This record gives sequence, structure tokens and C-alpha cells, in this order.
Amino acid sequence: METSIIDIPGGVTAPAGFRASGIHSGLRKNKLRRDLALIVADCRCAAAGMFTTNKVFAAPVGVSRSHLADGYAQAIICNSGNANACTADGYEKADLTCRVLAQHLGIKKEDVVVASTGVIGLPLPVETIINSIPELAGQLACGVMASHAAANAIMTTDTKPKEFACEFTLGGVKARIGAICKGSGMIEPNMATMLGFITTDAAIEPHALRAALQSVVFDTFNMVSIDGDTSTNDMVVILASGKAGNKPIAAPEGEDYEAFRAALLKICISMAKAIASDGEGATKLLECTVRNYYNKEGAKKLAKSVIKSSLVKTAMFGADANWGRLMCALGYAGVEFDPSKVDLKFKSKVGEISVCRNGCAIEVDEELAKEILSCDYIYIDVDCKCGDASATAWGCDLSYEYVRINGDYRS
Amino acid sequence: METSIIDIPGGVTAPAGFRASGIHSGLRKNKLRRDLALIVADCRCAAAGMFTTNKVFAAPVGVSRSHLADGYAQAIICNSGNANACTADGYEKADLTCRVLAQHLGIKKEDVVVASTGVIGLPLPVETIINSIPELAGQLACGVMASHAAANAIMTTDTKPKEFACEFTLGGVKARIGAICKGSGMIEPNMATMLGFITTDAAIEPHALRAALQSVVFDTFNMVSIDGDTSTNDMVVILASGKAGNKPIAAPEGEDYEAFRAALLKICISMAKAIASDGEGATKLLECTVRNYYNKEGAKKLAKSVIKSSLVKTAMFGADANWGRLMCALGYAGVEFDPSKVDLKFKSKVGEISVCRNGCAIEVDEELAKEILSCDYIYIDVDCKCGDASATAWGCDLSYEYVRINGDYRS
Repeated sequence: METSIIDIPGGVTAPAGFRASGIHSGLRKNKLRRDLALIVADCRCAAAGMFTTNKVFAAPVGVSRSHLADGYAQAIICNSGNANACTADGYEKADLTCRVLAQHLGIKKEDVVVASTGVIGLPLPVETIINSIPELAGQLACGVMASHAAANAIMTTDTKPKEFACEFTLGGVKARIGAICKGSGMIEPNMATMLGFITTDAAIEPHALRAALQSVVFDTFNMVSIDGDTSTNDMVVILASGKAGNKPIAAPEGEDYEAFRAALLKICISMAKAIASDGEGATKLLECTVRNYYNKEGAKKLAKSVIKSSLVKTAMFGADANWGRLMCALGYAGVEFDPSKVDLKFKSKVGEISVCRNGCAIEVDEELAKEILSCDYIYIDVDCKCGDASATAWGCDLSYEYVRINGDYRS
Repeated sequence: METSIIDIPGGVTAPAGFRASGIHSGLRKNKLRRDLALIVADCRCAAAGMFTTNKVFAAPVGVSRSHLADGYAQAIICNSGNANACTADGYEKADLTCRVLAQHLGIKKEDVVVASTGVIGLPLPVETIINSIPELAGQLACGVMASHAAANAIMTTDTKPKEFACEFTLGGVKARIGAICKGSGMIEPNMATMLGFITTDAAIEPHALRAALQSVVFDTFNMVSIDGDTSTNDMVVILASGKAGNKPIAAPEGEDYEAFRAALLKICISMAKAIASDGEGATKLLECTVRNYYNKEGAKKLAKSVIKSSLVKTAMFGADANWGRLMCALGYAGVEFDPSKVDLKFKSKVGEISVCRNGCAIEVDEELAKEILSCDYIYIDVDCKCGDASATAWGCDLSYEYVRINGDYRS
């Protein structure tokens, strides 16, 4: 039986037991922009996180990883405007932020997750954060506007806030998952950072929660590429309050676990697509599905190689059905396949067109191809015809605007 | 004793025993642009080649690889304007080209190397090539103009022909190495292809020649990245005529081998830099040296990760000393290092500036940094302070022009 998963409003405050807020603390110069977000659960939550694999990781990544080691947390605080990375006193400041917030909320320091996004290498004005904690906590609330304030406060060059929530059935009761995230961007040209904060009222044990998050992140966030630069600050964290009242999911298996994982997957796919389509300078969302490959890992590598190729990205920006670039990107993905079996198609809401069959050129209606590729959501379909595994990756085109955003001098 | 290596004119015809030509055959529409090049040796030469690692490789790559398997060749024919890749009859056409040329020159088909660069997936108009062979062979000549014609004929979106030659001493006699190459480009937006054709009059056995080429290519061509897209058509080939009269180099060791290898390295570094600085849309040549790392392989990965980063490339385009992006790129290079030991410097002809010491920010004179980074040749110096190995990689900035060249619709 397929569980139905319904989109609902409310973002991170949609699940029972969570409040959120987002304020302007003064980290940003522009007083109209929020720069500090808080998500707090009414109770200590099962929690899990996944972090950047970059060897140069920001102080808050190190602090949050250690705070989540026991599988529990209760609050997430995140600032934008400063990455707190490559700074000599970054750990002390991230730790201080957790300590002051914990004291204010009456919880343990180790139950606070801290995150930052912004310029690397600038000292974090931690006093600004500390001094704003009373106001930030004072504004904690349930409801659409509270999640919205938090989603806004973590934005950098994102052009829109990203919030998602869904409702699904878990062991006969209604449960919810909510999320906010940000993609690539900065107020001053700097690192792209991907942050995702997820809440749920499902009751689930930490190790099952971690298993679900991990398996879902591999198929969603890890299949997004804007520019190939893995940030120093990436972080995805989930808190589970248990307020839905379902029989707790004790292990990463069984019907309830699968229902939870399916809902989490849906939310994370939505976040991945929102991040890709709002990539720096993006005019188009690209979705590449590699089908009928020997195994899933290889299919993922092929799909990601296509999505990352600068030549594919610029061709999509120019609405050019230059499929030779797709073949080339498949060819250097580092996995075995038979180019002479590959079929390639482009699709969008106005139609679809085959451009390559069995690895060779076929006659293409260039007018139709141009029409299809002029849409803002392009599907690239790669059929390897050698197995039954498939994978999907998301990205965006490479435009003049990407160069402008990242080439402009910091000022 | 350091052998002196002197730059000389003449390109591929500088070494004794080689003639070259380049003509307009009709593959390109523009009659003012040459599109077919030929390099012929007076005798059968020791020969070696290195080819793209892309699983989707063009027909001429497959044909040339098999023709070079015995370690000998006498002629190289190369067309621009069509890649002869992803075409059903590509092999037959590449083979036919070799057969007709060999017949005309009175040599064996297996001693012909064939190369192509241009649009992928379009049928090769092989008759145009075949019909032009008499004229192409008729124009074979020694001297600067002949090499220049060949260097021009292999260009695609390259903005200038690339030719190099040097003279050095080998076992008491003068020997020469000459070369032409092309970088990323196209007449119709398509694959970047890197082609390098090298001649030498040094006497050297095929297996020693191959060893020298391989070791040098790993440190030069393989350390260049324009946009991360490994072409279907990349090829570097060297022919050694033996006309210098040196005692033949029989093995990849000893003083003569090292003298030859040093001269070949110099030529290949010149080609690598010329290709990087003429990368599509490039306004600046970037040279990143990673020093004092544990081992050379790791240093190479770190240097290449910096050179490939879109965020580093756009920062350099904008003359922005945004060193956090360098740290980030080092961090995801996939090798171990201690970020808290890293020192970073930018250099150019107007001066140098330290921007990061022991992994942390230091005070930077932003005016001076901007002046340094506004030059057209930028050195990025990374000191890992953990060993004594070093490596250098070359690339270019990422500009609006790159997007324009590759985003424009093929027409």
C-alpha cells in the first residue's frame, strides 16, 4: 500500500512541538534583511545531522557534529552573513553561542545545533549574536509566519525562501515533516553553502532517524550540483519531537520506517530541486535521469557528471541541443558503459525530443529542440540499455549572472 | 650539469627531417580559415601518443592508438571543424583517410596518425579530406611558414596559433624539439579538444620515447583545466626522426634521456600554459603551485582542485582576493592535509601578497591585492608546510565570454 503524502503549509513549524523565529541581529548591514534564525522544540528530540565532507570545515560544523553525537538535540540556531570558517577563534565563538542560547532556553548546551553561512575568513561578531538571543527567543512562535521568518534569515544570495512541509500516515496516526533550507549564495561573493533544517513530530529512535536521513540525503542533496564547489559549511539536520503519538519507530526497517522515509524523501527532493533551480544565476532547473544502468552508484555518477559539466550547463543556458556534450560528460564520469547503446532525450513541459540513438546522431528538428530547451525546467533522459538501475541529479544552467555574482569584487 | 635549452623558431619543422602544411579543404565554410594540417617525416620515426581517457572517444583516437601500438609512425593528418565522434561510420572514414594519405606518400597506412577536432555527432565529410590530400601534400615544406600553416589549420576557438621549438645538447650534438598544439575551442560551440603534435630529431627508441612523453604529459597537459570537461578527442603525439645524429637513447634512464626529457618538459609546459591562457573566454592565466606537501600526487590533486574551482575562477576574473574559496577548493580535493598550517599568497608581475597564514585570515591591503590580481598572469602559492613535494597546475579565469561562446546556439 502506497502511503499518501500531502503537501501542507507551515514549514518547520508544521510538525507538532516546534516553534521558530528569524530576526535582524545586525550581522548584515541591511536592516531590512533578517540574519539570525532559531528553531526550538518543546522537548528534547531524537536528532541526526549530515555535514560537509570538506576537510576545511567551519567551526559550527565541528561543534554541531559533536553535539549531535548522542542522537539528541532541542534547538538549532543559524546566522547568515558570516561563515565562521578559517577563523582562529571560531570554535570558542560557536561554543559560546550554544552556551548562551542553552542558558536562555533552560536546556543543555549539547542540545543546541549551531550553523553559519556567509563570508569565509572574517571574524564572527559573536557579541551581535549573543546580544540578540533574548529578542530571537522572544519571537519564537508556531505557524506559517514564524517558519517564514526563519527561512528568510538563513538566505544569502538565494532569491526566495525555501520551506516545505507534508503530512502522512504513520501507524494509523497523522505525522508531519517540515523543513527550511538555503542554497548557493552570499551577500558578499563567497562560498555557496547548503543548509537544510528539518523537523518532524514522528516518534523515531535516533539511530533509525539517522539511517533515514543518511539514505535520503545520498539520493537528494548529494545529487545536487550548482558549481561543483563543496562548501565548508554544508549541514542538514533533523529533529524529531515524537508529538505525533505514533508507536515509536525503533529500527530502520518495517512499514512505519518506510512510510517515514518516503515522506522524508519527498521533502528532501523538494528541497534539492528548490536549491538547484535557485542556484546562483540560474535561469533553468536541470534534471538528469540516467536509466537502465548496471547499478545505482554508477547511474548516480553518470547523472551527476552531466549535471556538473560546464559545457552542458552553458548549452542549456543557450537552449542548444548540443548532445555531444552530454555524451562527453557521460564518457568522463569514471564508470564503464557502452556508448554505442546510449539513447538521449530532452524533455520539458512543451514536449520531448530524441537527439541520439545507440550513441549516434539522429535527425533532429532543431526548432522543436530549441522550443523544448527554452523552458525553465529541462529533463535530460539518458537510457544506457544495459541494466535496470536508475538515478536522478539536479542542477542549473550556467549564465552570465553566475559570473557576475561571483566575479564582482567584495564590497 | 644543467643542460641549456634555447627557444628557437620553426615549430614542428624546427627539428631536422620534418615538413608540414596546412590548407583550407572546405570542411569549414569560411574560406579564409585553414582546416586540414599535415606533418610528415622524411623517414619512419619512433613515435608515441597519449589519448583521452574519456570512455566516449572519437574514431580517430581509436585508429591512431592502434597505429601507434608498434611505436612507429611517419605522418600526422589533422582536420578541424568536425570531431568525427559519435558517428556510425567514423572508423571507416578515419581509416580511409589514413589509407589514401599513406598511398599518396608511399608509406604504410599504419604509420599514419589521424586526429580530428570540432563538432561531435556530425558525419565527417571525408570526401572533402580525401580530395584535398594532393594539395595538402603538395604544400609540404620546411620552415616557419609551413609550421605556422599547420598550427593555424588545427585551431578552433583558439585565438592564436600555438607553436614552440627549442634546441638542446644531447650526447655532444645539437638536437631539437618542435611542437604545435590547440586548446579549447570550436568554430561551432562544441567540445573543447586539446591536441598536441610534437616532433624531434633526437634519436630515441620507441619505449624510451613513450616513457618520456608519458611522464611529461602527466606534469603538463594533465595539469591544465579550462572547464573540467575532458574531451572525446584529446591527443598528444610525438615523432622522433633521429636526424640529430646523437647516440640513440635506448632506455628511459641516463644523462641523455634526462636531457631529452628536460627539453620535452620545457616544450610541454609552454604548450600547457599557452592552452590555459587561451582558454575559452580567458582574460587571465592562472598558475597554482602547491608546495611542501607530503607527496607529489597529493600536491597535484590540491593544485588542480584550486584551478578547477568555478568560484576561484570567477574571483580571479573579478580580481577579488577571496582566499576562502581557495581554502574551500583545497578542502574538497580529496586528500588529507592540515588546514591550520596552510599559507596562501597571490603573486603577479606587480608584486605579491599574503592573504592567509596558518589557515586563518591576516590583514590584507585590499588595494594592493586588487592591483596584483588585475594582471593577466596570476600565481597562486599554497604552502602546506608538511612535506617537501610540490606540483603546479594551470588554468584560466571564468568570464562572461566563456558563457557567451558556449551558450550561443550552434548556427
